[in-house]
Amino acid sequence: MIVVYAKSIVLEKNIDKYLEIAKKLAEETRKEKGNIFYEMVQDKNNRSVLAFIEKWENMEVLDKHMKTPHFTTFVPQLNELREGESELAIHEVLF
Amino acid sequence: MIVVYAKSIVLEKNIDKYLEIAKKLAEETRKEKGNIFYEMVQDKNNRSVLAFIEKWENMEVLDKHMKTPHFTTFVPQLNELREGESELAIHEVLF
Repeated sequence: MIVVYAKSIVLEKNIDKYLEIAKKLAEETRKEKGNIFYEMVQDKNNRSVLAFIEKWENMEVLDKHMKTPHFTTFVPQLNELREGESELAIHEVLF
Repeated sequence: MIVVYAKSIVLEKNIDKYLEIAKKLAEETRKEKGNIFYEMVQDKNNRSVLAFIEKWENMEVLDKHMKTPHFTTFVPQLNELREGESELAIHEVLF
């Protein structure tokens, strides 16, 4: 099982728009086979730190996810609204 | 709802011991009221990056968790086995 932690920095002025797009992405992603959860979280100490926490059955379904129309449509839109690169960590669940 | 991402760097020689203690901590933590999940994950690109991903009903139960005997016993033991400080991010779940 795979857990993804994808963290972005989003300026205050862009947060509402960012979340609006992220919500559409989440809605579609949760329908995918092999997605266990997909959540948008915000750092309690810094509103500009927004992260997706995602759980997937395996790498194959995660790879498929990154080729879906909702991913290839919405992720570039999110990229426009974040500062710098997002920090992506892909993990194996040990226990 | 609260999501915690607590990341540590653990040298290869200490990983087995670290995971042994982390497993005991996880077993006890999962029995706590208000814990939704508590998982140990390992970065797929770097075995030395180990993280707890945790979900809690609210901050109150998370605060209580940090005062439990299993937390105050096992976390200092884990601290001895990691390199430097662990990186702790506490998030509010937005959706």
